[in-house]
Amino acid sequence: MIDHTHNIAATSWVASAAGHPQFPVQNLPFGIFSSAQNPIPRIGVAIGDHILDLSAIADRLDNVAANILTQPTLNALLALPQSVRRALRHQLFALLTDATNQPNLAPYLHSASAAILHLPTRIGDYTDFYVGIHHASNVGKQFRPENPLLANYKHLPIGYHGRASSIRLSGEPVRRPNGQRKSPDGDFPLFGPSQRLDYELELGIWIGEGNALGQPIAIADAGRHIAGICLLNDWSARDLQAWEYQPLGPFLAKNFHTTISPWLVTSEALAPFMTAQPARPVGDPQPLPYLWDATDQAGGALGLVLEVCLTTANMRAAGVSPYRLSQGQASAMYWTIAQIVTHHASNGCNLNAGDLLGTGTISGPTPDSYGSLLELSHGGKTPLTLPSGEIRSFLENGDTISLHASAQRDGYATIGFGECQAVILPAAS
Amino acid sequence: MIDHTHNIAATSWVASAAGHPQFPVQNLPFGIFSSAQNPIPRIGVAIGDHILDLSAIADRLDNVAANILTQPTLNALLALPQSVRRALRHQLFALLTDATNQPNLAPYLHSASAAILHLPTRIGDYTDFYVGIHHASNVGKQFRPENPLLANYKHLPIGYHGRASSIRLSGEPVRRPNGQRKSPDGDFPLFGPSQRLDYELELGIWIGEGNALGQPIAIADAGRHIAGICLLNDWSARDLQAWEYQPLGPFLAKNFHTTISPWLVTSEALAPFMTAQPARPVGDPQPLPYLWDATDQAGGALGLVLEVCLTTANMRAAGVSPYRLSQGQASAMYWTIAQIVTHHASNGCNLNAGDLLGTGTISGPTPDSYGSLLELSHGGKTPLTLPSGEIRSFLENGDTISLHASAQRDGYATIGFGECQAVILPAAS
Repeated sequence: MIDHTHNIAATSWVASAAGHPQFPVQNLPFGIFSSAQNPIPRIGVAIGDHILDLSAIADRLDNVAANILTQPTLNALLALPQSVRRALRHQLFALLTDATNQPNLAPYLHSASAAILHLPTRIGDYTDFYVGIHHASNVGKQFRPENPLLANYKHLPIGYHGRASSIRLSGEPVRRPNGQRKSPDGDFPLFGPSQRLDYELELGIWIGEGNALGQPIAIADAGRHIAGICLLNDWSARDLQAWEYQPLGPFLAKNFHTTISPWLVTSEALAPFMTAQPARPVGDPQPLPYLWDATDQAGGALGLVLEVCLTTANMRAAGVSPYRLSQGQASAMYWTIAQIVTHHASNGCNLNAGDLLGTGTISGPTPDSYGSLLELSHGGKTPLTLPSGEIRSFLENGDTISLHASAQRDGYATIGFGECQAVILPAAS
Repeated sequence: MIDHTHNIAATSWVASAAGHPQFPVQNLPFGIFSSAQNPIPRIGVAIGDHILDLSAIADRLDNVAANILTQPTLNALLALPQSVRRALRHQLFALLTDATNQPNLAPYLHSASAAILHLPTRIGDYTDFYVGIHHASNVGKQFRPENPLLANYKHLPIGYHGRASSIRLSGEPVRRPNGQRKSPDGDFPLFGPSQRLDYELELGIWIGEGNALGQPIAIADAGRHIAGICLLNDWSARDLQAWEYQPLGPFLAKNFHTTISPWLVTSEALAPFMTAQPARPVGDPQPLPYLWDATDQAGGALGLVLEVCLTTANMRAAGVSPYRLSQGQASAMYWTIAQIVTHHASNGCNLNAGDLLGTGTISGPTPDSYGSLLELSHGGKTPLTLPSGEIRSFLENGDTISLHASAQRDGYATIGFGECQAVILPAAS
């Protein structure tokens, strides 16, 4: 079925949308914004360098009740069936491509650079997975040299619950955490600022319609529970993690801050960029039937290019451009996002609209695509020398990390995810 | 300072409160209820066999703004400074002990047995700890015979994030989860109903006033962030847990359902029952300074008697009383609740009013005080024979588990926590 909202030739009367690297009219991601004139957070759609205020035009939109579009979060919109958001997308596409709407709608366009963005949902629960197999292997080698990939890894998407309260939007500085660390040869742990602060390149999955407690989600149905995707930086204090993580998993090493990009890039916008899940290496086990669906394998992988850049305080002062630490493919995930969702609900656990699932760090097979400093510096053993001459094993105060994702395919307009960046502040004293 | 709300001689004009084993006038726990006549969830206080509707008398209560007492959750009330809730308690105590108030207030008393109870807060985040050292040792022996208590255990309160969405009140049945399990000698995992479903006897800590992201909570201040306590059953599928828990901790083995008791028993009501933290065994390490406070050690342990009872379907059909599986002391916690809160926030993680922290399973040193079937049956190796003649290694469908807690001290009225029970339903097919 041809969906004309993917037509590369379509253009919007919002001039800045033409050829926009992130937000052409083929993207139309949802978010929450406020403006100086109206400080109430409300739903908007990114279009070029602008945000269209959906709350202000809610009574002209046929497919969604106005009281859902005037909420201060996306939760109610995400709780609707996927077909409703698809219809809304089609109507917005029509409104923004037909120039006769310009006089009526232009008053509700806000400059994105002047707007304040807010968390897109009230995140009820945040779960983080571990499906980047190269990351799991690389990290496993450091934490458990004798046993990097555990026996369960290829049978189920490993995941754990994270902290919802400390998820923050791009732009909010990250305070270096204090915590306990213990060197392998030390007799006692010390308490103080983390010495091994790291980023993790991840994608976030926004849950749409939820499932009732006790009712699993079949793999063939998982797609309709996935509303969209964002960028996610799972900041990690490796020294705290090494000391605390057994036997119940990461805790204070992760829950001090998680940064996400502000826009929910919809499953509808990403449809042309879904690709086949890479074939499992020969010898890998066949997953159990509840995790296996031929359609998902044929088109359930995200075809995105991912990138991480570092800007040190010195570089910023000197006006030097961000340094690219890595670039890779989102398809380097051992499990699809549908498998992640289905596994999460397989025991009856209820997912709710607006919940966020992290994929885990997405590293490619080679060092130029590793998604964390722990991997790039081999646990600090091989520090990186930056073009500025500075050396990094882990992050220093004043460093800014920015994540980028882009969906590119011949014959389609490139769409992006917006900003996911933050600077490191010194630890609380 | 003498607090007259603890006076054992005080009596209420609510007749059922006199000598009530749970809710005498010295308790006054907060909760959320609705009634057949008024289905809107609202704040109430348990008194004897009744619930006083605070929303209906909000304009007579001096210390808390009426719009906080008419909320459908306790979150806003818990976000207030502890001193405000203490003042509210004093006013409620005065109103309920002075018989001249009976004519005015009696219309706002609801029969507890006819009321519907609701979750007390919108739980933003749920964290579970592992501070029952006998439990940690007993379980550790089964999962890691060579290494039951890991090196970090006596240096920090081990914790992990749990699932907020699947927390349910006492009375809601628990559906047995499906999931992956793998026997040690099996080649592949199987997917199906858990064969090793268990309960865990825990207490829940309700967070009062929160802390800002990046701002830790000093151990001497932790008490004012603790609003109260409830019972918590951390249902656990041991076979799923054994297969999935490495390296990131328990996930689907736990997040299918957590049962809590409906009433928030306040820190103010529990004050007379706080006792000295048991001295650390000789040779145990001295905790780092951020976790150590002499006042907390002298009076930061909960003096509660805890109990677990089992009723099988056969016992219920035969009208047999619940069978007591264990009885123990809450003071069998290696870390105090203040240490738990301070450690949680020590990296800057922000706790919010209405958050819930589980203590972890509280087992005593001897089998008659073990807080899970995993311990009582030694991992299924020594099944229990019940007085009914039935045998249990783990829970069967139709089994009901009920947890009980009681605060008792000479010279004080005994106060209780209400019900925390649920029955096991068959797995979804």
